Amino acid sequence: MPPTVAGDGAAPAAPPSVGAGRIDLVRELGVRVGADAVLITHADDIRWAVGFTGSNGVLVVPGGVGSLSTAHFVTDGRYRAQARAEVDAAEVHVPEGSLVDYVTAAGLLGGAGRVAVQADRLTVAQLDRYRRALPEIEFVPVEELLSAAVAAKDGAAIEAVRRAQALTCEVFDAILPFLGPGVSERDVAAEIVYQHLRRGASAMAFEPIVASGPRGALPHARPSSRTISPGELVVIDMGCVLDGYCSDLTRTVAVGAEPHPAAREAYGLVQEAHRAAIAAARAGMLGGELDAVARDVIDDAGLGEAFSHSLGHGVGLDVHEWPRLSQQVEHRLPVGATVTVEPGVYLPDRFGIRIEDVIALREGGADNLTPLPTDLLVV
Amino acid sequence: MPPTVAGDGAAPAAPPSVGAGRIDLVRELGVRVGADAVLITHADDIRWAVGFTGSNGVLVVPGGVGSLSTAHFVTDGRYRAQARAEVDAAEVHVPEGSLVDYVTAAGLLGGAGRVAVQADRLTVAQLDRYRRALPEIEFVPVEELLSAAVAAKDGAAIEAVRRAQALTCEVFDAILPFLGPGVSERDVAAEIVYQHLRRGASAMAFEPIVASGPRGALPHARPSSRTISPGELVVIDMGCVLDGYCSDLTRTVAVGAEPHPAAREAYGLVQEAHRAAIAAARAGMLGGELDAVARDVIDDAGLGEAFSHSLGHGVGLDVHEWPRLSQQVEHRLPVGATVTVEPGVYLPDRFGIRIEDVIALREGGADNLTPLPTDLLVV
Repeated sequence: MPPTVAGDGAAPAAPPSVGAGRIDLVRELGVRVGADAVLITHADDIRWAVGFTGSNGVLVVPGGVGSLSTAHFVTDGRYRAQARAEVDAAEVHVPEGSLVDYVTAAGLLGGAGRVAVQADRLTVAQLDRYRRALPEIEFVPVEELLSAAVAAKDGAAIEAVRRAQALTCEVFDAILPFLGPGVSERDVAAEIVYQHLRRGASAMAFEPIVASGPRGALPHARPSSRTISPGELVVIDMGCVLDGYCSDLTRTVAVGAEPHPAAREAYGLVQEAHRAAIAAARAGMLGGELDAVARDVIDDAGLGEAFSHSLGHGVGLDVHEWPRLSQQVEHRLPVGATVTVEPGVYLPDRFGIRIEDVIALREGGADNLTPLPTDLLVV
Repeated sequence: MPPTVAGDGAAPAAPPSVGAGRIDLVRELGVRVGADAVLITHADDIRWAVGFTGSNGVLVVPGGVGSLSTAHFVTDGRYRAQARAEVDAAEVHVPEGSLVDYVTAAGLLGGAGRVAVQADRLTVAQLDRYRRALPEIEFVPVEELLSAAVAAKDGAAIEAVRRAQALTCEVFDAILPFLGPGVSERDVAAEIVYQHLRRGASAMAFEPIVASGPRGALPHARPSSRTISPGELVVIDMGCVLDGYCSDLTRTVAVGAEPHPAAREAYGLVQEAHRAAIAAARAGMLGGELDAVARDVIDDAGLGEAFSHSLGHGVGLDVHEWPRLSQQVEHRLPVGATVTVEPGVYLPDRFGIRIEDVIALREGGADNLTPLPTDLLVV
């Protein structure tokens, strides 16, 4: 079983900003698993460490000191100008051929005997390629190598998530006039995407979910050609990418008429679970503890079975990051983690309800990054 | 080095449609690498094999005969109804907890001694989890296990790519009136996405590229707030997902005024390279041979350095599939492969040009799936 770094509670509370400080942190995480160097290949993690926003590259962080401590970033010819403009904390290399071959030929791993790699980011084939190119090196696959460090966001990263989330809240307000009986889920989704892109989002973080009436009971429903009928609930789950950081917001609205009393009652329950979880959230809790706060509210009302997914997940450079707020995990939530809180109730063939905000955890509490009320709207 | 299956030329010319025939083919590919069973975990490959359109699942294909040959598909609770509706060719299981644990506990791998897994689809951590759960089994990581089989598309899959590509061509026509001096790249991109989604695309296959003037020289430029000036070339590269299959189209247009003569001349060269490659394309060629047809045209004009990427790639359930049309590979192109042909010329700080169609390869030739002319438009 490979060693795990995340969740051992040792990540610094306030990580250094992109650049040399983060390189030092990567080096330190390598040392902690007994490695002489660390190889980072995942785009989001490279972006976190050195600020490169392209899609292909390898970051080599040796464990040495002095001149032996220089980090190296290797990318391909498409990103020559971009890498030089974006990357300060590592020496930039732009070889002609394969990046793996270059890492080998240029001796970037120097005299390292043990090199840590990301077990949950690298494919079996990729690791095999490194092992064949560098047979004298022992590669040490580590799960969640950078997860806790990336999750423990600094002020700038939290503000970036806040801006992305605020943009999505603006879009929510902008699409309300568009919602009405007879409009299809797919057309609502198209409007959501359009409004995000016109307001400066670089992309959607995921395909929006617009699930009306009984389709709301499918937590991951894709927008269909189904049109909304009066009095139906519609679950709208959407997120964008703004300046590299993701948003994630869900609201459930009633369209055209007052919903069935049972739907309104269930809505109140989800809202109460959502509120209770946000009130209880603080750094240092276990992910499962926070999940339990919301789940207990729904369980106590006899609808526990209808809350069929976990409470939330980290959001940042990726829309699904470590940590998870789930009964299945035991990791502690670090200071600076930005996580979703998204309880739901799904009654097959009837309706679904989900309310989701993104919050930032701190000592003793949490800041809600979602400037949007949760009361049920009938539009 | 793990065994490789794709590219050995042994994939059937016309694979069976989704269902039992494809399960048999997976089984046969397993036998070919000496495995008693095959484990498929990649969503697109599962979709190809059994038609499931969700995002999480494991397909177990034992090598046995008779009742021992039953394939099993394991997914989580979110997909209970969907899996039962979509999957015929395998027995569907929906356990409560971890899918890996269930595969183990339910004995779905039966008496298999050697199990083939996809080396280029599975992370090191995922494989490790299987190895720990099933220590008595020898897992055999195979690169490109299903690639040639998936690439050799049947008529239905080719028609699905054709429909997606036709939709993107329609969108190209629809956005032409929107293009003009003073419009930003980002607003063009928003319009592209909106028009696709309103016309029934379920998603974009990738974030559109809208790269104007000198930004066109960056083959992977992201749409920016830059506004288009009269006489500039704009590279527009876009693709959607329709019924699960992807499109991929690039056109370069001049906006507001006749472009510089050098730009028009380079355009003609790219168009000639594009035409030559499509005329030469046929099943059975090496990917690198087809790349060379286009590259020779551009090399002969002295602009070889400016064609800085390979000629194309497979398109299907994924927008970047096997095979590659590249000097770096030696695989043969199977009958039924749908591939992009996208030569380009990029002159730093001046302009970029790329023209891209999707074609379907057959014996002796290719069918162009792209109903759109390539002559330079000045709009």
